[in-house]
Amino acid sequence: MRIHSSLLTVVIVILTFTFGIAGETSNQNVKAAVEQVLHTQQDAWNAHHLDAFMAGYWNSPDLTLFSGVEETSGWQGALERYRKTYQGGGKEMGELEFSGLRVEPLGADAAFVRGAWRLTMSDGKTPHGVFTLIFRKFPAGWRIIHDHTSAAQ
Amino acid sequence: MRIHSSLLTVVIVILTFTFGIAGETSNQNVKAAVEQVLHTQQDAWNAHHLDAFMAGYWNSPDLTLFSGVEETSGWQGALERYRKTYQGGGKEMGELEFSGLRVEPLGADAAFVRGAWRLTMSDGKTPHGVFTLIFRKFPAGWRIIHDHTSAAQ
Repeated sequence: MRIHSSLLTVVIVILTFTFGIAGETSNQNVKAAVEQVLHTQQDAWNAHHLDAFMAGYWNSPDLTLFSGVEETSGWQGALERYRKTYQGGGKEMGELEFSGLRVEPLGADAAFVRGAWRLTMSDGKTPHGVFTLIFRKFPAGWRIIHDHTSAAQ
Repeated sequence: MRIHSSLLTVVIVILTFTFGIAGETSNQNVKAAVEQVLHTQQDAWNAHHLDAFMAGYWNSPDLTLFSGVEETSGWQGALERYRKTYQGGGKEMGELEFSGLRVEPLGADAAFVRGAWRLTMSDGKTPHGVFTLIFRKFPAGWRIIHDHTSAAQ
């Protein structure tokens, strides 16, 4: 009986340790994968490749974007909004920097991110603000399914 | 052999159906529970019970609130922000209405909500905007762990 309960304790400790580590590793993997999407977006923006930047978003009519109180629906709508705001006559994309990224996994296939953004324009202006992003894991990888961005006035 | 594969098909159909319904029910339960928290918050606000309103938030220093680009940390910080903004000299809480609530479950113990808010003040002004809320399920129930709110200018 004493041997059995000792063995049981050992098994429980091993299982706890193993699943504990597995959980930690899984969270670290989620964080790394989500941060990678954002780094790729930042690089794509700074190379002025809007299509590559948009690859970080879920390509679906159900994607949503809150820019302040304005809501944009769908991947295509988001692309058009970015084009209208940052490309074409007298517009520029500027240099984008994300900072203070806090990725928080929510289960195995979802996460949210709190962070800050800053653009540096050629005239020296620096529009900036914060964002909340919801990510989901798809077969093709992690994608933003909802973006709530605020800009400083 | 034919009987076995028929039986297998029947079992698979039953399992798919059962888990499909279980998943649907689970999602509906999450939506109902999260909406209940928000309805309770709305009622508490309109009864000018700020403490009861605050019960919808995770009582933790890790709660975060983005109001436009301004970040507030912790449940206590959020309470003080609400007090400062809506109570005391010349301030009022007004009548709060949430609308367009879209609750989306993210796994078994997390969800996010897109929605709109509107306050009606005694002078007829109606500050309003949109929000993104992240909810987690705790032993005590569903609580907001992050709130990103934007107000129309």
